[in-house]
This record gives sequence, C-alpha cells and structure tokens, in this order.
Amino acid sequence: MSLNAFGHLFRVTTWGESHGPALGATVDGCPPGIRIDEAMLQHWLDRRKPGQNKYTTQRREPDAVRILSGVFEGQTTGTPVQLMIENTDQRSKDYSEIAEKFRPGHADITYWQKYGIRDYRGGGRSSARETAARVAAGGLARAVLADMAPDLKITGYMVRMGAHEIDRARFDAAEIDRNPFWTPDAEAATQWADYLDGLRKSGNSVGAVIEVTASGVPAGLGAPIYGKIDTDIAAAFMSINAVKGVEIGAGMAAAELTGEANADEISMGATGPEYSTNHAGGILGGISTGQDIVARFAVKPTSSILTPRKTITKAGTAT
Amino acid sequence: MSLNAFGHLFRVTTWGESHGPALGATVDGCPPGIRIDEAMLQHWLDRRKPGQNKYTTQRREPDAVRILSGVFEGQTTGTPVQLMIENTDQRSKDYSEIAEKFRPGHADITYWQKYGIRDYRGGGRSSARETAARVAAGGLARAVLADMAPDLKITGYMVRMGAHEIDRARFDAAEIDRNPFWTPDAEAATQWADYLDGLRKSGNSVGAVIEVTASGVPAGLGAPIYGKIDTDIAAAFMSINAVKGVEIGAGMAAAELTGEANADEISMGATGPEYSTNHAGGILGGISTGQDIVARFAVKPTSSILTPRKTITKAGTAT
Amino acid sequence: MSLNAFGHLFRVTTWGESHGPALGATVDGCPPGIRIDEAMLQHWLDRRKPGQNKYTTQRREPDAVRILSGVFEGQTTGTPVQLMIENTDQRSKDYSEIAEKFRPGHADITYWQKYGIRDYRGGGRSSARETAARVAAGGLARAVLADMAPDLKITGYMVRMGAHEIDRARFDAAEIDRNPFWTPDAEAATQWADYLDGLRKSGNSVGAVIEVTASGVPAGLGAPIYGKIDTDIAAAFMSINAVKGVEIGAGMAAAELTGEANADEISMGATGPEYSTNHAGGILGGISTGQDIVARFAVKPTSSILTPRKTITKAGTAT
Amino acid sequence: MSLNAFGHLFRVTTWGESHGPALGATVDGCPPGIRIDEAMLQHWLDRRKPGQNKYTTQRREPDAVRILSGVFEGQTTGTPVQLMIENTDQRSKDYSEIAEKFRPGHADITYWQKYGIRDYRGGGRSSARETAARVAAGGLARAVLADMAPDLKITGYMVRMGAHEIDRARFDAAEIDRNPFWTPDAEAATQWADYLDGLRKSGNSVGAVIEVTASGVPAGLGAPIYGKIDTDIAAAFMSINAVKGVEIGAGMAAAELTGEANADEISMGATGPEYSTNHAGGILGGISTGQDIVARFAVKPTSSILTPRKTITKAGTAT
Repeated sequence: MSLNAFGHLFRVTTWGESHGPALGATVDGCPPGIRIDEAMLQHWLDRRKPGQNKYTTQRREPDAVRILSGVFEGQTTGTPVQLMIENTDQRSKDYSEIAEKFRPGHADITYWQKYGIRDYRGGGRSSARETAARVAAGGLARAVLADMAPDLKITGYMVRMGAHEIDRARFDAAEIDRNPFWTPDAEAATQWADYLDGLRKSGNSVGAVIEVTASGVPAGLGAPIYGKIDTDIAAAFMSINAVKGVEIGAGMAAAELTGEANADEISMGATGPEYSTNHAGGILGGISTGQDIVARFAVKPTSSILTPRKTITKAGTAT
Repeated sequence: MSLNAFGHLFRVTTWGESHGPALGATVDGCPPGIRIDEAMLQHWLDRRKPGQNKYTTQRREPDAVRILSGVFEGQTTGTPVQLMIENTDQRSKDYSEIAEKFRPGHADITYWQKYGIRDYRGGGRSSARETAARVAAGGLARAVLADMAPDLKITGYMVRMGAHEIDRARFDAAEIDRNPFWTPDAEAATQWADYLDGLRKSGNSVGAVIEVTASGVPAGLGAPIYGKIDTDIAAAFMSINAVKGVEIGAGMAAAELTGEANADEISMGATGPEYSTNHAGGILGGISTGQDIVARFAVKPTSSILTPRKTITKAGTAT
Repeated sequence: MSLNAFGHLFRVTTWGESHGPALGATVDGCPPGIRIDEAMLQHWLDRRKPGQNKYTTQRREPDAVRILSGVFEGQTTGTPVQLMIENTDQRSKDYSEIAEKFRPGHADITYWQKYGIRDYRGGGRSSARETAARVAAGGLARAVLADMAPDLKITGYMVRMGAHEIDRARFDAAEIDRNPFWTPDAEAATQWADYLDGLRKSGNSVGAVIEVTASGVPAGLGAPIYGKIDTDIAAAFMSINAVKGVEIGAGMAAAELTGEANADEISMGATGPEYSTNHAGGILGGISTGQDIVARFAVKPTSSILTPRKTITKAGTAT
Repeated sequence: MSLNAFGHLFRVTTWGESHGPALGATVDGCPPGIRIDEAMLQHWLDRRKPGQNKYTTQRREPDAVRILSGVFEGQTTGTPVQLMIENTDQRSKDYSEIAEKFRPGHADITYWQKYGIRDYRGGGRSSARETAARVAAGGLARAVLADMAPDLKITGYMVRMGAHEIDRARFDAAEIDRNPFWTPDAEAATQWADYLDGLRKSGNSVGAVIEVTASGVPAGLGAPIYGKIDTDIAAAFMSINAVKGVEIGAGMAAAELTGEANADEISMGATGPEYSTNHAGGILGGISTGQDIVARFAVKPTSSILTPRKTITKAGTAT
C-alpha cells in the first residue's frame, strides 16, 4: 500500500520535499539492458528547469540528476534505479510568518490537520517541485519505450490558458518547443503572453489545460476493469499538484454527444483496423485501439498570488 | 498487481461476465463487527435493477445478492466477504451475427486484439453489468461508513443529459429519488424525458454527467501524492464503463479561473476552519478539508444504438 | 494490501469459512486461452477430499468446484476466474460448549483477541478447509503451467511423520499415489500406519514434514530481493494452517555444512550448466538455476486431540 | 508489484548495489511525529559495520547513513523517508577474471541467465551488503515501535555455528553484545572462535542459525491467511542473502512432536491469558498471542572460500 508510488510492472516511488536535502524517484521493475545515462535524463530535467523564463517559478537551481543504482556500464541491470536530485536553492529566509498561517488553496491546512506537523519552508511534499522526480523517472520510462516500442511518441502541450483556447486549425507540433507556454499555436502564444503579463501585474494568476498525445501505441495495451489505461492515466494526471479535471478523447464533452455523433466507425486499413474519428481517445474498454491516445488535464490557477486572500493562523485567528 | 481490484485497506475485487453463471465482488479488509445482511445490500441493488423504467436496459432479472462468506450471525468477522449475484436472464439467442463482427464504440475489438478470444454473448467482462458487483460492495462500504463515520453521507445524481444541464437554483435533494433520471431538478427531469423519447425514437442515444457529493467527511482523509483522495476518485470513476472525463470541485473549468476567483478563503468557524467557497471540491493536496467532497464524471452515449454504424468483421471485411 | 491474497501476476484471493455457505478462490491475472473445465479442477479436489481414509478428517462432502467466471467455451478469457466450492457438511450441532471456551493450539483465542468476534462452529476462516480453495486455484495454475512450461512437473509427498523419516534409498515416485500418506517410501507407509493407529487410539496426534519438488523449471525465474522464488515459497508454505518451518534445498541443515561441502560445483552439460549437487534447492539469489526446486515444510500435530488440555473460557475461567 | 519492497503500511523498498555510488531504503508509510535523526540510525549501522573483527567482511567503510527526506526538525512528517548510504570502499581492482567466470554458490550465474547482464564487481544487487539498507530502515522501524509499542523489544542472536549449538542453560542476554558472534552463550563464543579460526585457516567457511525474539508484543497483531505474522516473518527472513530455512516456535521439530506434547495449555493470568509453553512461537492462526514471538533462520556457509571449486565461464568452459 505504497501511497507515494505509481505503476505496476515499472513502479515509481517518488520521495523528497521542496526544501529538504534532495528529492528523487525509486524505479522498481525497469527492464534490463536499456541504455541510459545521466545526460539522457538531464535532457528532460533541463526542459522543466525553473527560472528559464519569466512565466515559471523563479527558483534557480541546476536540478542535476544522479543515477545512484541499477545502471552498470551504461545499461540498466534489472535492479532498482535510484534517481536523486539535490535541492540547492534553499535560501535562508524568515519563515516565521508563513509558519504560523495557512495559505488559501495550498495543502498547508490539510497536512496540518492530518499529520499535526508540517514543513512550512515551502510546499514541502505538496510542492510542484515533486514533479522533478516524475520527470526523471519519465526520462527513464521514455528510454525503455524507445527500446520496446520505438514507434511510440508522447507529446505534451498547452491547449488553454484561462478563457483562451488554442485554434486547432493552427496546430503546429514544431511550434511547441519554440514558445514559453509549450503550445502548438504560435498566435495563441503571443496572445497568452500579453494576457499573462496583465494578470501578473495585478498580482493574479490563471489556470490552464494541458493535452498529452501518444501516437504509435500498439493495440491491446491496458486491462479491464480497474487496470484500464484510462484509469491509470486519470490517476496519474490527478496525482499531479493542482489538477482538478481529467479527460480522455472527447472527455467531459462526450456527455453532450449523441450516440450517432460519438461512434468511431471502423474500417479495414492496410495494416489493421482504422477509425473514422477518435472520440474514444484511442481506448475502448480500457484497452488501446491503436489510434492516438489523447488525454487532457486542467490545472487550477496557482494559489501563490500577491493579492491577499483571507485566512487563519494555526491558532485559528483570522489574518 | 490485481487489475480487477480497487481500494487499499478495504479492497474490492470484482469478477464475472454479463452472460456467465454469476458475477460478484470479493471484499478483503472489511472491518469486523459491522452489522450487515443480504437485505441491506439488496436495497442498493434494487435501485440499480434493470428494467425499472423505459430508460434503462430491458434485461429482466432480480439481481439477488448472496453473502457467501465473512459474515456470521449478522456481523462481519474481519475475513473476506464474498458477494455473489447470479445471472438469470441469459435467454438463448442467436449470437452468430454478433459473434463475427465488432460493434463500434464497444470493447469487442480491443478484447479480441488483446486476448485473441472474446465472450460474444454481450459485453462479457466489459458490460456495464459489472457495476452490479460495485453496487453490492458499495452497499457493504456504506454499512462500514455508517458505523465508523455516521455523519458521512454520499449522494449521486445526474446534472446533465446531452446539451441540457440542470438549473442549480432548482436543486432539491428530495427530488433525486422521484424521477427516472435521479436528478435533483424536477423541471429538468420532465424536459429530459421528452428529449430522450425523441432520441430513442430516432434510434439514437446521448451522454450524461453524474455528480457525486460526500458531506460530513472528516478533515485529514487521503494521502499525498499518489494516494490522494482525488486520485482514487478519478481512478474509480474512470474505471466505470463509458466514462470519459472526471472532475473534482471546479473541475475542467478551474482552468478558466483566475487565482483570485479560485481561492477558497479560510475563516474560523464554531467547529473548525470554514471556507468562503468550495472550488477545491473539498480536497487540498489530496487530503480532505472537511468541506463537501464534490466530484463529477461524464458518460459517453451508449454505443448500442439502432442506427447502423460502419464496422468490420473478425475477418476484416466491411459490414 | 490484500491480506487474503497471494501471487503477483497470477493472483489468488481465497475466501470462505469452514461452516459458511461456500468457500473459494478469485484468480486475477490468469492468461487467456488456457483450456480448463470443472472436471480438470475436480481431479485435484478429489485427491484432497475429506473422508477418503481413516487418517484424514471425517467430514464428508463432495467438494464439487464450480467455475463462475473467466472461462468461455472451455477456455480462460483473461478475466477473473471465480472458483466456488459449496459447504454441504454443516450438520446442525450443539456448539454451546465450544462457543465459550478456547481450544489450545487453535486460533480461537487470537481471532477473539483481534476481532472481538469469532465463528465458533469450527475453525472458521482458520480451518484447514481453506486449503480446498488453494487446491482449486492450484489446479488452474497447473493448467497454465502445462500450457506455458509443459516440462515443469510439481510433486508433493510426505517425508517424515513424527520421529520417523523416510529412507531416501527407498524413494519411489510411483509409490506416492498408492498409500494414504502420499509417501514415496512404501515401507515407511506401513510403519507409519501402525504408529498412527497407536497414537490415535491414545487420543493423540503427531506432526509431519512434506517435501515439494518442481522439475523442469527454466533457469531465470524469480527476482531479487524481496520477490525471490524462495521468498514466495516460504510465504506460501508458512501461510498454510499449522506450518511452523520452511526449508529450501539443504534447509536448516545448511547451517551445519562447511562452505566446501555446501558448494554445488558447476560444469557445462549438453543443454546448459549442470551442478554436482543441489544444496541450493535449485535457487541462487532468488532466481532458479534450472535444477529441481526442492522445498519442505513442517506441520505441527493437529491440536484437535481427544486428550484434554487445560484452557480457559471467554470469561477467563479455567476449564 | 514491487519486487524490491517489503511491508504493508510501513513499506520499505531497498535499492543499490555493492559497488555502485550508494545504496539505501525508501520508507513509505512511516507515521508522522516520530523523533528520529541520523545518529539514532547510525547506532544500528555501526553494529553492522564491516571490518569490526576478523570474522566479518574486511571491507572498510564508515557506512554513514543520511536522511534525505521525510524528516523535518527532528521528526518524521508522514511523507517518504529516504535513507542513503554511500559506498566508499570501491577500490579499483582487476575484475577481469571474476567478470568471465561464475562463482559457485553465488547468484552470478542466475542473474546472467535472467538479465543477460551482471554487475561483476562484487555481488552487485545480490551482495549481503544490501542488508545495510535493511538495518537503516530497521532503525527507523525501531523508533516507530518505541513510540507506538514501548514495551516491545526485539533481540537477535546466534544459536548455532556449524555443528555447534548453544547450551540454552547458559543463555545470558547480556552476553550477546560482548562477543563477536552475538551469541548469548559465552562459552560457545570461545569454542566457536577456535572452530572458526581452524576453518578459516583451511580456506573454508561454515553456516549458522540466528534466532530473533520479540517480547512485549500485544496480542492480536497479524492477519489471516496470507498476511499472517509468521508468513511475513518467513518471507522477510528468506529474502535475506544465503538464508535456506525459517522456523517459528518449535519450527521443523514440530513435526516430531505429538499433539499432547505440542499443546501450549492456556490459563488465566493477572493481565490476560498465559500459556504453559510456547511451541507456537507466540503466533496462532497468524495472529500474535501476546507470548514472545520466536523465530529462527539458517544461513548457509559463505560461498566465498579460498578452496577452489569447479565452475565454468560465461563461454561455458570449465575452469
């Protein structure tokens, strides 16, 4: 009953707090013989690295990942892979005010209610910094997939910021890496920059929707009923800090469709079954169809805003 | 790695197919000393029973649940509770046509691709009939909660059918049990009946959104990071047949909010912290706040429609 | 955290009590396409069936196993297989005396201390009757192995009763099925019959050691460190009612060997590595070597004896 | 399906190899508010530290344990605790000979057969050095127990070396820490020293039996059937490098007892049930009785001996 772990055969346990000595991921079940080194993992951590532009956290640290076990002479051995990232940006700071009051929208209050103790130096375990451990483990997972399913390609990108959605007609995958919002719509990126600058000036923030697509997925992955691919995706996405909604294929909008409109009709293609549309998001009965798997999640606006919000202290006093 | 199980301490494994001899749930970890009998479980199964009105499946069977183990003299003993429901409506029927072709939107094709074998007599394991086993296990879970957290109350109801949402101003909990759609908005129920009659006449179907609320939840339940309450809810909902989206609190719409609007401000109430709003859906950092837990899921329109949709046979021939 | 389950990919949860309506096993993870029917499972249950000779429990029932799910047209489908055995020998009986006092050596007292409730009609969940569910699930496991590893052969037999061990020089596998003790030493069987008759006449009982051998096991099964084959065997054996010791290969006697004597020297054979001896019991570092896997367990004498032993009642009174 | 993890609520995943940069343990589920620091863990690692006397491995390193997460201001927070021990004794060495041939009795050959790759610099993952991670996690477990069950006391000691068993009449718990064999029998310690010196001079080794006792265990711990305390102990012991047998209470010798002799008779004591003897080893039906829990395991002689044993190379050549 590991509450900090995810996955079945390739099982990831993340550990660490935002302001402790280090954080990381223990990967149990990584297949042997996978070529991996720290540089291959660092590639992904560098993409996540804080402080790259004015829209992300201003924390500054290299987030250098070290492989402590499970790899010998550049290959995984089949034993647990320990990935560690040291926290280097732990500026000494006066936490006395934060330590006593609960920040609205943060997990300060629930950790306190549950554990009777909390790490007040930052989000602690509930900090979005935990995703650095996921990125490291994800880098290893990508190396495994590159070996076992070389045609499989996973891409994530932003499709909505606040009220502003991308225009799918302008979708250009090449654009994703070129703007600070990782969005495939160049025009949206320009508009969002202005929009976000305005919000930030007024001490405000806003939410977003991220879409993740996997192409080249073999048909037949996943398992009924509680081990469905979509079940695992929903759990994984919802476990990320600040996520409030998860969708597969047509998602919440599937409720608004009729059966006629929703049906992905099947025909025989050159290499296997083909579908007229992909409302199912590449998954039927929890098992992959061979179409692209398409999933989305909504992130609430960051609760760390400059505009003061009413709250209470540990003593229950209004502040 | 039980792919047909759900839950940590109270762990439910469901088993059975739509047209086999029986289906049911094995519950491991039920606390001892809980008063339970078959009638208490039957109450919930009767609410789910097929054939109650023209809007549900026309399958006709009593869905009588039997307790085969784990209960002695009207109390749970702490050992596994086996709940069995016999399938009685297995009309002999000519499956020859169904057996050869894949029904669009159903899991026929993916089960075939994965297992090389499928139960063509109905959905088999992927049939929505699997939820009968959940209802039985859920009845037991409710008995446990009644004992351990008597103030906790869980209510489910329908808030959208196709393009038609309920009007929250007309929300009346007492109405839920009075209409065939389990909706708290009496006027919506009337409108939906007409709408659905029209769809059915044209051989069509439509999706829906269900909301589930838990009130009286103690603060401090759940656990970071992968064992969050919202993670478990997302997984549980997504594992249900035909679900394509899951939301907690503000849900997907959280992406459209600003940080100022989204913040649930905290004040001190008579019995503990109180919140100005509940965008969080009663969960912060994966742990309950003591507010109502509010979650929703979207169900795609049933794929079993009269309007023919293009598909192929097992041999790959168009039909 | 299923405390009533065993196994990783092929996962067995047993359920049921000695005097409830039924008991059985839920098997999750059985591969699809395995040919199985009730008769194939009944073969093994018939070998275990009570009342076959004077040395076993005198309970009389057919122990007919039913397959309730996961099998269609004589083949497993990949979905959970539910195996049920109804309890038919539940003679109405006066339990008033048993219900109040604890039987020494039985789990009556600890179940009472743990759960505050107990099924006094027999051992309840702690009855050796639970092994009927294992035999049913084991029959299915054997069918899977016959398909996936046709050369693998598992044989169990008795090698010690009380102070009397078999003579390995008289080991004859064909003898195992010919005597009521399932021992490969015909002469030991004759001696044991006399010995046990004497014990039974005086209202006494005695312990035994069972050895289980698997031949034809491919090298490379198992996994370090906590998922070792020997770890799983030790857990599985120790979970059986009344088992107090478990050994692999040389077992406890390995402590008495020197490194020189214990070393299984390696040479190259026609089809792979060969070993001069098998002190390791076919397992090195938790992984199979390709030699026979050899394991043993010791069963304490049954605590149900006619000679009265001192005990107390639920009220704490000596009796 | 974490194969490198052990435990249910307090779950330990160990990672690391004998010659990699570090090894350690990820502890998920540690209760919050437990006072712990590195010195408290170091106490136990120092007792295990290699090179303390001539009878242990001559590897020399401080085995300094670091707490990387889950502890804040001297208390556990309820989040995962990462314990890391750096490997410092990695002398550069010529492994060319070892790299090509398999050492009899070691897991070299099975890792090679399973993974097609092996860490030839030492035992790698199968090295007994893995137990350092267990000792660190065990130190944390002891701190939890000191808080939750202050009367519970766990003691381990050696009761047999080769053919030489201790004399229980000379059992003196205070003696355990005074001799290099951690044995409670001072006279045995002297005899064993001579015996082992002789064996070592002739390039040989010998096995041993270790007994572990837990006193002050509350009645009612453990769970039927597969989650029995004895099942967990058997699995835990058997997962340790080189263990070939596990016993609870009377152990393998229970097979030689009659039911009369084996029965632990029950009487009512001042604070609860008392037992005339403890053949059960403090466990009935997998649940603790409140008596001392007594368990033993046999370790085979180390396979690293100076006397050459026949083996083969990776190429299959005799050597």
